[in-house]
Amino acid sequence: MASQAVTPQSEDFSKWYNEIVYKAELADQSPVRGCLIIKPYGYELWEAIKSGLDRRFKATGHQNAYFPLFIPESFLKREAEHVEGFSPELAVVTIAGGKELEEPLVVRPTSETIIMDAFKQWIQSYRDLPLLINQWANVVRWELRTRPFLRTTEFLWQEGHTAHATAEEAEAETKQMLDVYADFAINDAAIPVIKGKKSDREKFAGAVHTYTIEAMMRDKKALQSGTSHNLGQNFAKAFGIQYVDENNQYQYVWTTSWGLSTRMIGAIVMTHGDDKGLRLPPKVAPYQVVIVPIYKNDTERGAVMETVDKISKELAAHGIRIYLDKRENLSPGFKFNDWEMRGVPVRMEVGPKDVEKGTVALARRDIPGKEGKQFVPQENLAARVLELLNEVQANLLQQAADFRDANIHDVTSYDQMKQVIEQGGWARGWWSGTGDDEAQIKDETGATIRCFPFEQPSGAGQCFFTGQSAERIALFAKAY
Amino acid sequence: MASQAVTPQSEDFSKWYNEIVYKAELADQSPVRGCLIIKPYGYELWEAIKSGLDRRFKATGHQNAYFPLFIPESFLKREAEHVEGFSPELAVVTIAGGKELEEPLVVRPTSETIIMDAFKQWIQSYRDLPLLINQWANVVRWELRTRPFLRTTEFLWQEGHTAHATAEEAEAETKQMLDVYADFAINDAAIPVIKGKKSDREKFAGAVHTYTIEAMMRDKKALQSGTSHNLGQNFAKAFGIQYVDENNQYQYVWTTSWGLSTRMIGAIVMTHGDDKGLRLPPKVAPYQVVIVPIYKNDTERGAVMETVDKISKELAAHGIRIYLDKRENLSPGFKFNDWEMRGVPVRMEVGPKDVEKGTVALARRDIPGKEGKQFVPQENLAARVLELLNEVQANLLQQAADFRDANIHDVTSYDQMKQVIEQGGWARGWWSGTGDDEAQIKDETGATIRCFPFEQPSGAGQCFFTGQSAERIALFAKAY
Repeated sequence: MASQAVTPQSEDFSKWYNEIVYKAELADQSPVRGCLIIKPYGYELWEAIKSGLDRRFKATGHQNAYFPLFIPESFLKREAEHVEGFSPELAVVTIAGGKELEEPLVVRPTSETIIMDAFKQWIQSYRDLPLLINQWANVVRWELRTRPFLRTTEFLWQEGHTAHATAEEAEAETKQMLDVYADFAINDAAIPVIKGKKSDREKFAGAVHTYTIEAMMRDKKALQSGTSHNLGQNFAKAFGIQYVDENNQYQYVWTTSWGLSTRMIGAIVMTHGDDKGLRLPPKVAPYQVVIVPIYKNDTERGAVMETVDKISKELAAHGIRIYLDKRENLSPGFKFNDWEMRGVPVRMEVGPKDVEKGTVALARRDIPGKEGKQFVPQENLAARVLELLNEVQANLLQQAADFRDANIHDVTSYDQMKQVIEQGGWARGWWSGTGDDEAQIKDETGATIRCFPFEQPSGAGQCFFTGQSAERIALFAKAY
Repeated sequence: MASQAVTPQSEDFSKWYNEIVYKAELADQSPVRGCLIIKPYGYELWEAIKSGLDRRFKATGHQNAYFPLFIPESFLKREAEHVEGFSPELAVVTIAGGKELEEPLVVRPTSETIIMDAFKQWIQSYRDLPLLINQWANVVRWELRTRPFLRTTEFLWQEGHTAHATAEEAEAETKQMLDVYADFAINDAAIPVIKGKKSDREKFAGAVHTYTIEAMMRDKKALQSGTSHNLGQNFAKAFGIQYVDENNQYQYVWTTSWGLSTRMIGAIVMTHGDDKGLRLPPKVAPYQVVIVPIYKNDTERGAVMETVDKISKELAAHGIRIYLDKRENLSPGFKFNDWEMRGVPVRMEVGPKDVEKGTVALARRDIPGKEGKQFVPQENLAARVLELLNEVQANLLQQAADFRDANIHDVTSYDQMKQVIEQGGWARGWWSGTGDDEAQIKDETGATIRCFPFEQPSGAGQCFFTGQSAERIALFAKAY
C-alpha cells in the first residue's frame, strides 16, 4: 500500500526520488551494503525493458549467451586501461569450498575479458565474423556511494560483445547499437535522449571511443542511460584474437561492447514522475490500465463486478495489461491515490451509474483532475483505451522533450556557462578544451561534458572556455 | 560446425554426453573451474524452458522479483540444517573495493535466507498472505566434481519462495509447484518424469519434506530434475516471520521453496539424444524446422531460393521457428548431419524438382532414414508442418515413456534389487528401512531412493530389504 504523500520534487528531489522508489514498491533496501531488492512491480518494469531491448537485439542479428560470473584476476589485468578503471571497484572471492583459492576470482564488473577469451577460441576465419553476442546478467561494482537503481553495488544489465573483420564494421555496429538504445528510450520509455560521443576523459576504460544516450531528469541533472563502445583492437590484441582473412592472412578482429542496466528504471522514474508519484509510459508499464470498481452495497457490487469482469476480458483479449483492484477493505479514493503513486497510465472507474448508462470513466495519469477524465461508452472500449494509451505515451514524450529543450542553454563564455549550471540547466557551447580543462570545469562547477551531440551545427565557432577556434559543440551538465 | 561422428552411447555414455554438449554447441568449457559458457544454441533452449515455466508460474499467481547475489555469512547460519548442508560448497567474497570486509559475503548457493529476511519486513497481517515470489538467478555451489549442465559451480535457475497462513496451504503450494514442473517436463520437454517424495536422507537441507520429479536417462541412471520443498515453520522461526491473523493473534508463517535449473538442459539431452546427436522436442527447440535449399548451379539456385523464401515467410507467419541454412560453402549432406547433431525436429529439403512439382521433402529427426521422410505439397504446408511437429513431440514422449517402463523392475529381495541395479535399471519395491539402511544400500550398490512415488499400490507389502511389513514402495536407482 502506497498512499502516503511524498516530499515535493521542488523541496528535495533526492528525497522525492527515494520515497517514490520505495512507496511505489519498485524496490526495497537490503541488508547487503549497496544492494537493492527489486520488488515485483519494479521487476515487471525491468522485464518490459528487457523484452523491448531483446526484441531489437534479435532483429539486428544478435544472439544471447551466458558466461561465468567469476573472472580469474589475471584476465582483468591484460588490458591496461581496463584494469586501471575497474580495479578499485572489485569484489573478490578468495575462499571457495572451504579452501583458499590459488588465484582469486573477481565477481564480474563487466565481461569483456572473460568473453574475449571465449572469442579467441570461437573465431578462426573471416567466415566466423561478425560474431554478435549479448548477455543478460548481474554485475558487481563496489561503489562508495550508492543510490537505488542509479548506482548499486550489484545491478542487472545486458552487455553486448561483438567482433568484426574491419574497423568500419565495428564502428557501424557501435553506432547501430546506440541507435537501438535511443529507439527504445524514445519510443518505449518516452525519454527524449540525446545521442552523442563521450570525451576521452569520460569514455569507457579500454575503449577507443564511447557513444552515449543522455537524458535530462526533472531536477535538470543528466543521466547517462546507455553506452556503446568502440574497442578498436585493444582487447583483440590483449587477448590475441585473430582470424584468417580471405587472402589467408592473419588479422586482429575489431570489437565493440554496449550496455544498458536497471539504471533505466531510475531514468523512467526521474524523467516522468511528479509530486503524486510515478508516471509510467504505457509501453513499459506493468499495468497499463487499473480498473477500480465502485459500489456501496452487495446489490451494486454484483452488477458492477459483472460489468467489470466483462470489460476485463475484452481488454485482456486486446493485449492490454490490466489490473483489477478488487481489494475489499480500501476506499476508491485510497485506491486512486495508490495507483497514481504507482504511475498506472490510465485508471478506469466503473460504478452503478456506469452500469446503467453503459459507460465507464477513464482518467489519465498524465493530465491531472477533471481535464484528464472522460466518460466513454462501453462499446468499442478496447479500441478507445488503446488510442488513449497512445496519447498518454506521446504526451509523456512531448512533456519530457519540452522540459529538456527549455533547459538547454547556449553559452558563449565560461561565466555564462557557470550561471546556467548553477541554475540547474544544461550548457551547450563550442568546445576546444583539453582533458585538464574539463577537470578544472568539473572542480569549479560540478559539471562534466555529457557528450558531443551527433547533431552538430555546421561550421566552427569560438570555444566558450579557451576562446580558441572550436569544431564541435559539447553539452555540459551535472550528472548522476 | 558440428558434423563429426560421436562416441556411441553404448560404448561410453558419459563421453557421448560431453561430446554432444560441445559438438551441438550447447555449451563450451570456461577458464573458471566448474563454470560453463552457455552458447547461443544452449541459451535459446534455456530461454524456451524459462518461458514455459514462467508462463505457468504467472498463471498460478506468482510474481518475479530479484534479491541480492551476496548473503551475509551470519544469515546462512540461522537455520541449523540449512547451513550444515550448504557450508562446504560456499564461495566467499572477503575483499571488496580494495578492503577486507568486516563480515564476509557468501555468493548465494540458494536464497532462502536473504529472501526470508525480506519476507519478515513485508508480512504484517493475514492480508499479506499468501506471498508468492519467484526469482530467476544465478547461484554458486563449489562442487568437487562437475559435469556440463548436470553439476556446475555456477548455474542458472529459478527459485520460488512462498509464505502461507496455514500448514495446509503451504503443503498445497508445494504439491502444486511439483505439478507445474511435471506438466512442463512431460508436455514441453517430453520427459516422462515420475513425481514422488524424497526420503528424509535425501531431502533439502532445512525442509520438512521434499517432493521431486525424477527422470530416467538413456543410460538408465536417474536425474532429479526439479524439487519442491515444504519448509514448514523452520525458516519462519529462524527469521521470526510472524503475521497477525484474523483474531489479532501472532502466528508464524509456513513457507515453501522450489527450484528448477539449467540441469533440465542435461535432462533433455540424455532423455532424447541418440548416436547421431541431440533430438529436441519441438516445443522447446530453438529451431523447429531447418530448411536446406538444394541446387547445383545459379539457375537452380534462383528458382529454389525463391520458393524457399516464400515458404519461410509462410511458416514464420504461423509461429513456426525456422532456420534457413543458406551457407554456401557446405554440401547438403554435411548440413543434414550438422542439423541432426543439433537435434532440429524436422528438416525440410527443397530442390529444383520440388520447385517443379510444387512439393518439399520433410524428414523427421525422431524416425531415421526413409521411414521418417515424406514428400508433401507446398499447399497448406504450415498446417502439415504443425501437425508433424505435434507427432514428433508425442513420439519423443512415447519413446521415453516406453524406455522408462521397460527399465523399471519390481523387486522383492535385496539380491533381486542388486541384480536390477547392476544391470542398470530402476528397482521398485516395498520399503520400511531406515536412513542407515539406505546408506548401506548406497555403499553396496551405488543406488539411492530416488523417491516414494505419489502413485502407490493399495495396501501393504513386505520390505525387500528388512523383510518387515512396509506401507509404501520406493524407487531405487543410481543417479546423477
